[in-house]
Parts: sequence; C-alpha cells; structure tokens
Amino acid sequence: MQSFEIDKTDLLRIKTALEGNDAELQEVLKEYHASEIAILFEKLPQEAKERIINLLSTQIATDVISEMDEEAHPEELLIGLDPEKRTEIVEEMDYDVATDIISQLDKEDQQEILEDIDQEDATSIRALLNYDEDTAGGLMNSEVICVNINLDKKEALDEIIRQSEEMEEFYTIYVVDDNDILKGIVSIKDIIKARGEAKVRTLVQTDFVYVKAELDQEEVAKLISQYNLTTIPVVDDQMKLLGRITVDDIIDVMEAENTEDILKISGVSEDEELSGNWQDAVKSRLPWLVINLGTAFLAASIIRNFDATVKNLAVISAYMTIIAGMGGNTATQALAVTVRRISLSDLSDRQAYNTVFKELLVGLVNGACNGLIVFAVAYFYDANPMLGLVLFLAMTGNLIVAGLTGASIPLILKRVGIDPAVASSIIITTFTDCIGFFLPLWLASKLLL
Amino acid sequence: MQSFEIDKTDLLRIKTALEGNDAELQEVLKEYHASEIAILFEKLPQEAKERIINLLSTQIATDVISEMDEEAHPEELLIGLDPEKRTEIVEEMDYDVATDIISQLDKEDQQEILEDIDQEDATSIRALLNYDEDTAGGLMNSEVICVNINLDKKEALDEIIRQSEEMEEFYTIYVVDDNDILKGIVSIKDIIKARGEAKVRTLVQTDFVYVKAELDQEEVAKLISQYNLTTIPVVDDQMKLLGRITVDDIIDVMEAENTEDILKISGVSEDEELSGNWQDAVKSRLPWLVINLGTAFLAASIIRNFDATVKNLAVISAYMTIIAGMGGNTATQALAVTVRRISLSDLSDRQAYNTVFKELLVGLVNGACNGLIVFAVAYFYDANPMLGLVLFLAMTGNLIVAGLTGASIPLILKRVGIDPAVASSIIITTFTDCIGFFLPLWLASKLLL
Repeated sequence: MQSFEIDKTDLLRIKTALEGNDAELQEVLKEYHASEIAILFEKLPQEAKERIINLLSTQIATDVISEMDEEAHPEELLIGLDPEKRTEIVEEMDYDVATDIISQLDKEDQQEILEDIDQEDATSIRALLNYDEDTAGGLMNSEVICVNINLDKKEALDEIIRQSEEMEEFYTIYVVDDNDILKGIVSIKDIIKARGEAKVRTLVQTDFVYVKAELDQEEVAKLISQYNLTTIPVVDDQMKLLGRITVDDIIDVMEAENTEDILKISGVSEDEELSGNWQDAVKSRLPWLVINLGTAFLAASIIRNFDATVKNLAVISAYMTIIAGMGGNTATQALAVTVRRISLSDLSDRQAYNTVFKELLVGLVNGACNGLIVFAVAYFYDANPMLGLVLFLAMTGNLIVAGLTGASIPLILKRVGIDPAVASSIIITTFTDCIGFFLPLWLASKLLL
Repeated sequence: MQSFEIDKTDLLRIKTALEGNDAELQEVLKEYHASEIAILFEKLPQEAKERIINLLSTQIATDVISEMDEEAHPEELLIGLDPEKRTEIVEEMDYDVATDIISQLDKEDQQEILEDIDQEDATSIRALLNYDEDTAGGLMNSEVICVNINLDKKEALDEIIRQSEEMEEFYTIYVVDDNDILKGIVSIKDIIKARGEAKVRTLVQTDFVYVKAELDQEEVAKLISQYNLTTIPVVDDQMKLLGRITVDDIIDVMEAENTEDILKISGVSEDEELSGNWQDAVKSRLPWLVINLGTAFLAASIIRNFDATVKNLAVISAYMTIIAGMGGNTATQALAVTVRRISLSDLSDRQAYNTVFKELLVGLVNGACNGLIVFAVAYFYDANPMLGLVLFLAMTGNLIVAGLTGASIPLILKRVGIDPAVASSIIITTFTDCIGFFLPLWLASKLLL
C-alpha cells in the first residue's frame, strides 16, 4: 500500500467521466476513498466539484469536504451547493470540522448556513466559533462520550451505546458529576471487564491530563506527544467538560507548525500559503528582503572603508566573498541545530552554555580545515604565502564567530521572548558578513600592504 | 495545564531528595508522572538514575525508560540495572519499545537480556529486531487484539477481554481467518451493539488501509495522516497480520522527519544528533562546507576575471556582495516554499510549471523593488546614476534567476530521484553567487569603464 498520489491517470479518468452521464461518473467515483476524492478536487473546477458532491451519498460527500485541505477552500464549495444538500452535509459533519470550514466564510454566509441546520447543531457550532482557531477551544470537538459517575455498569454501557450512535469512533469515555464537572476517564475495556454490579465511581481513573480551552495549540500538541495520548479533554475554568481533542487533529497542527518553522527559518512569513498567488508571496517576503538589504549595506560599508586595500590587491575581493559565504553556511548549520533543539525542549543554563561552547569548537575546527585549503590555494595558485596566512586567519576567525553567533543568538532571543526561528538568520548573516569582510581586509591592510 | 518543562526547582528537589534516604526520595518521586521523570533523567548521573529506577514500581520504571528520549540512551541505563530488575522491566515493556532500545546495544548485551526474559517475549523481540528501524516493520508492535472471523459475539468479546489483559489500550480489533490472514477490522462498539447471535463475519469491515512491513516510515506517516487513522495493521506478502502501528509512534516519526528536514535544508547531515558532541558535529558538517568552499571558488573565479573592473571601480566590490547576498536570500525563500510543498504532496506538471512561473514573477518584482533602493543609494550617495542603472539591472536579473532556480532545482531533483532538501541549497547558492558577481561586474565593464 502506498499513500495516494494524484496521478495523471486518475485525473484523466475523472475528467473523462465528467464528460459522460451521472451513472458513469458514479461508477468511477466508487473506486475512490473520500480522502482521495478530496485530493483530486484540488485539480477540478468548481462546477465539477459541485456535480460530484451532489452525486455522492451524504456520508461520503461530508467526508470529502471534511478532508479537503484548508488551502483548497472547502467553504467556497460548501456555500456554492444547493441549500438542502448543504444542510445535510453540515449536519453530518463533526462540529470541529464544520466550525473550521464555516469560520472562513463572512458573517452573512455563516448565518445562512447556521439558520438552515438543526438548532442543537447550530448552537454547538456557534459556541465553537467563539474560540480562537489556534487554541484548544478552536481545535476541540464538542461531541464526546460522557457518563455520570453515579451510574452502574449496565446503565453506563447503555449510555455509551446510545451516545456512540452519532460518532464514528471513540477512544476514551469521560466521567462527569451531576454538574458536568469532569471527574476522570474510564476505558470501554474496564467497563466491559467490570463485575455486573460495579459502579462507574469505582472504575474511574482520576489521574488524567486535561487542557483549558484557551491553551495554544502548540502546547496541546506537546502534551499529546509527551504523554502519548490519543485524546485529551478540554475544560473551562470550573473544570466543566467542553469537548475533546483527538490525536489526528494534532497531526494536522504538527504539519502546519513544521511548515511554519521551515518558512520562518528561511525568511518567509509564517502565514504565506504554500500555494498562494505571487502578489501574496511578494507581500510576505519583500519586507524581510528590504531589512536584509539594509544589513547588507552595513556589511558593504566595511568594504568601502578598505577602498585602498581593494585597489591594491583586487584578488582580496574575490577571497573575502568566500570567507563571508563560508561564515554564513557555518552559522546556518549551528542555527538550525540550536533552533531545533529549542523547539523540542527548553534548555537549562548549563545546556545552553554547553551548546554555545560546542558550536564555538566546531567553528574553530571547521574554520581551520577550510582555512588550510584557502591557504593552499593562495600559496600555490597566487604564489603568495602571506596572503595565504591572512586568509587562513580570517577563515578560522569568521567560522568561530559563525558558530558562536549561530548558537547564542537564538538562545538569547528565546530568553527575551522573541521567536528564535524568525529573527535569528538575519542577525547572524549580518555578523558573518561583517566579520567575513572585515577580517581579510583588515589583516591584508596590516600584513600585506 | 502546561506541558512539563524542566525547571530548576524540580531538578533541585530531586537532587536534594537524592541526598536523603530511600523513603524520602520515594515521596518526592510520587509527585511526578513517568514521562516527567524521563525528562528529569536527562540531567541526572547514571548512579542516580539507577537508584531511582530501583525504587519505582516495575510498571512506573518501565514507563520511565520507555519514555526516555533516544538521545538520552535508555539502553545504557537498562544494561546497567541488576539483571532481575532489568528482566522485569523488559517483560513489562511494549515489544516495539523494547526492540528499539535493545537494538542500540551490541549483540552480546542483546543476547544477555533476551536470554533472561520470558521466551515468548524474546521470540517476538528477536523477530522485530530483523526489521529496518525506519520501516513499518521496525515501527510496529506485534501485540494486537485479533479475533477469528468465525466467532460469534459472545466468543469474540471473551477473546477481546482475555487478550486485552496484557495491553493498556486498544483501538481497533483485527479479524483474521484460520490461517492468520487479515480479513478486516471491527470496532468494539459494533461488537457491543450487535445482537447476541451475531457473527464476527457479519460485523467485519473489509475495506481498510494496511501496510507491508517493508514500507518506509515516512510513507506510513503520510497514510495515517491522510486517512486520519488511529492505528494501521502491518502485514507480510501473504497478508498475514504481523502487528500494528499506532498514531503516537507516528508523532515521534513526524518530529524526527521534521528535524531532518530543517537540518538538511541548512546543510547539516540528517543523522547528526541535536545534542551530540563536537567531534560528531564536525564529521557531519565539514564535508558539506568543503563542497561549498569548492563552489565558492567557482563564484570567486568570476571576480578574478574582472580584476581591471575591480581596480578601477573599487566600490563595485562592495555592491556585488549585496547583490549576490540578496540573490541567496530570495532563492532560499523560494526553495523553502517549494521544498515544503513537495514534501506535503506531489505536484503535477502543471502545478510545477505554475510554481516556477510564480517564483520568477516574485523574483522580478522583489528584484525591481530592491533594485530601486540600490539605484537610489548609488545616485545620491555615490553620485553615479550610471552605476545606479548597472546595479538596478544586476539586482533585478539576479533575483529573477534566484526565484527561477529556487523553485525549479528542487522540482528537478525530485523528478530525478534526489532528495530536494539536501542538495538544493548548495546548487542555488552557487547560481545566485555566480550571477550575482557576474552581472554587476560585466555590466559595469560594458557601461561604466
């Protein structure tokens, strides 16, 4: 089994089927899983998507729209459907998914959808729309299986079966008191295994991990990953059970956070959509490039101060670009390792000190190795051993600075509360460029001219 | 609730308790969850860890060792324990966790541990040790709940309760025929809800996702994420059920893959341990730096060819570093967005073409904007409008090349089967450096001198 990848054959089959009648199209659709149709949807025009949704059973149509990527804009598809089909689909959807999709629409469209659907569903979705989408509240599903702590085995099982009618899957059963205050969790296994007269009270596990609705989704992901949880309950300040977050929602959060990390470390705004248009990409990247241009002028102004050196030894301007560039590479390596360490766990003072010292040593050794190569080139190719010495010292010095700043800048930023991934690379490049230009030029001006 | 972060207070409490007697230490340990103790272990010496493990119940000690990070080397702790305690712990461990830990030891130590434990457990672990740790087989747990398709409701429930005695949690029940061939899945809910005389045969879902034991773990993660699965069964070529992979194992895979992606894109070997020593870091990074040095010489050789231009217009050597640097930044942005898109889904030819065209446009617009700023500086600061024109053209040209290469190189590498993250950044930097040096020097030599 391979993960499904869109392939021209599949797309061609669907497109050919779209030219035929409904019965033929339905035959072809039967061969695809809902999440596969969701992927194929990224390549189809709006009319085709609407026609396919109308042909699918409500169950499958709901799964398809639920599985669509946020960037494929399921809300546009939903609002384009005829109201009756749309209502069936929204009523079938998990509350958290429906909320995510509906939240992308303007107030008027939201209103229209919510007025048509079952009023109990509408109330739940309206409540979820109030939470920030990056928090536990925005992530949670309010459909949970929950039993009163005073029930006995038989009553609890009946209750679980009744509540699970509307849910596809459940993992954990939540136990609440008469005021809906969360008291603990119990597994279906423990209930089945219990003696006939056992009370839920005696089966409940009261030591469990929960989150408040306001907690940031990244923190929720850390908890789920750290405690190996399948679901986590969400409560309000009075410990009233509001809903649950399941691990599959967290996987989507982790993928989004990963994308953010890689974009931020590369100087792209974390909000840029990967498949967005060029205007948005310019808006997301130009500000960062202009800041970089400013720091590049700063580094270049160092070169201007050594005008005479450059005129008298033009070859130094070729070498200094090499030394500055190698500093940038070394710093990027130290930065990536340090940023990743920070994002996986917090470092104690001692660990932070050790990290910086390690990167300094790595910079020294890598600097000396690369310095020797540059020395050899200057010695044999330029026949200028003194230039070789200058370059060896400059390379070693710059790579020490690179290791030092690559490790210490993100650690410092983290301590003062700035996201290390977003601000580090511009600061360290400025350092390695400035030192990378200054060292060879200054040493050459002292030792060679 | 916050995710647990080591804080000096916790560490100090444990360290103080370690100076007291066993009873006091036990009191303090009671307040920590097993996964919290696992994190504290990263800061404690071997003797302290062994003493703590000996004081904990087998259940908690097992959880602590199971939760330890790979880089904290749980295998060293395990092999240091006295054989009786060690045997209890290994027997209590999930097979997949035990296999991961034991696989880090040398053959002799592996042998010693496996000889002491229950022979059924040892056979299962030995079987798992044969799978590559990056595949479905290496990730799977061989403990599954599985029932024969010919059982009825009552028999199936008894069987599930019997098998679940040894498992903490289970989600999906696998259904096999008399030859252990996987026929489908059934949920505990469906079994409980079924009529008394119902057969498993009538309840089984035969449309399910499974993987072969050899499948790469990244593909397993994609499937679990795409189909929103909690577990996935692992089978051999004859569809015989070998085990299952649960979503919490996949979260660890995703974190590891994520670390790899960030390291590779920054020129660090994917195998470098984040908290490894400096010697290993040098080994992991020096080769990449030396290759970069080679390409830097290539770019610098362009500057050598314009010796006369540099001598006559020393200020150009300051400006060309700016233009080359801005090209590098622009290409890195395009690269990050493209690499991330590729790793999340495969692009069709049309999408690939659109991506390259979009990045070309973004490069053009960002190049013209930054080019205008550089023009203004040359015009007002250097009082040299012609130099300004040269720099404007060079900046725009280099940023077009940067967008073009940043998007197309990873796409090309992907098509020819090379990991885009690892090879792209060195190739695009070479391009943007070469063009970034050549354009201003060549234009200056033609238009200014």
